[in-house]
Amino acid sequence: MTLLPEAQRERFDVVLVRPRNPLNIGAAARAMANFGFSHLSVVAPFAPTWREARSAVDSQDVLISARESATLGDAIAGATLVVGTGSLQYRKPEQPVVVLPELAPLVNQELARGGRVALVFGPEKHGLTRDDLSWCHLLVEIPTDPGQPSMNLGQAVAVCLYELAARVDSAEGTSGPEPAESGRLELLAGVVEEAMEAAGYSPRAMQAANRRDLRLLLRRLTLSAHDTRRILGIFRRILWRLRH
Amino acid sequence: MTLLPEAQRERFDVVLVRPRNPLNIGAAARAMANFGFSHLSVVAPFAPTWREARSAVDSQDVLISARESATLGDAIAGATLVVGTGSLQYRKPEQPVVVLPELAPLVNQELARGGRVALVFGPEKHGLTRDDLSWCHLLVEIPTDPGQPSMNLGQAVAVCLYELAARVDSAEGTSGPEPAESGRLELLAGVVEEAMEAAGYSPRAMQAANRRDLRLLLRRLTLSAHDTRRILGIFRRILWRLRH
Repeated sequence: MTLLPEAQRERFDVVLVRPRNPLNIGAAARAMANFGFSHLSVVAPFAPTWREARSAVDSQDVLISARESATLGDAIAGATLVVGTGSLQYRKPEQPVVVLPELAPLVNQELARGGRVALVFGPEKHGLTRDDLSWCHLLVEIPTDPGQPSMNLGQAVAVCLYELAARVDSAEGTSGPEPAESGRLELLAGVVEEAMEAAGYSPRAMQAANRRDLRLLLRRLTLSAHDTRRILGIFRRILWRLRH
Repeated sequence: MTLLPEAQRERFDVVLVRPRNPLNIGAAARAMANFGFSHLSVVAPFAPTWREARSAVDSQDVLISARESATLGDAIAGATLVVGTGSLQYRKPEQPVVVLPELAPLVNQELARGGRVALVFGPEKHGLTRDDLSWCHLLVEIPTDPGQPSMNLGQAVAVCLYELAARVDSAEGTSGPEPAESGRLELLAGVVEEAMEAAGYSPRAMQAANRRDLRLLLRRLTLSAHDTRRILGIFRRILWRLRH
């Protein structure tokens, strides 16, 4: 039994959204080092927390080289499969939800298509917001006891990375068309919105909630990179015509 | 997908040997609550650590009701399958070693025979000693990256319990003879030693190392409860005869 090979592990991003506790950031970085993952992104960290985590004496290389982003959208722009984590029992998410022991086949498929996977963890207290979730293709739930469903952040990261390192298949190969990156889908969402406005939608209808719906809709379509380019071209053409 | 049913989870002990960091004890207890395990034993904890862990504001019920033992042998006396954990790369253990993703079938077998499973975690810095290991039927290794093999204690507990909760089969039923409890095997080891002394072995030969070897030997035999009683009877008879 071997861990997932390094070339595959390179295609994962671990994203911590607004973490509050420096010990948790350190623990997440340590779990990444334990399971051989190296790309950590931190979204809008609380500044003192972030300083403290990075200056810890046992700070991992993973943490030193972590990327800091202002928004989740920026952090995952290069990912083609964005997987949100958390305890989802009290929400009705619009995406498919899988339990962690069933995640590996879906990740295998994405890697086989040449994709890049981001695993997104929310803040300690409240988890991912509705807006954060709108960036996710898929949600994953760690099967926990209903009496104490909420896991510590560092432990949740360890459990998810263990599962991926141990059970994602290392088979190389490509199958199916290259998937679209998250950043490209967001670009498309922007152009679609501009076209909607140009077509007479009132700006009031163009609220945050609508952008979230549009984001989710585009992710449900599982567009390839090629189709995304094509649709983007169509909407740009429409937009140009509407404006002239 | 459901967690292992409660009746099965009742048949697990989590044992922390000489833990040093109260945060780790708390984290281990939280992971137990997350995955629905309730029997925690702590062996020879450092007293201030133990007090601090138990008095934490978010202290789990698991921790409040934890059992404290002076020795590992006491903590696991009721277990029929004792599984040691740790990074074993630099030792040559005498027991079988399995990687965590392959542990579930062995645990299934033990539960089906009506056994009780103890999962033993060593101290943060150095892991389980040779003496601790002599109590283990089996060692389990979490597959980690050679560059950073050593996991944080709380995270290691979380990963192991996740694996057991998600993948141990909940099928009821009994198969094979009832296995012997660890405490019964140790009783047998004591009588065998007495018989050896009575038969003329020098007390110098009866050192700690020999007791460890004897312990390991008895565990390799995978004795049933019935056979253990039988062999104990034979040795007691021999011992009586040697002394009279």
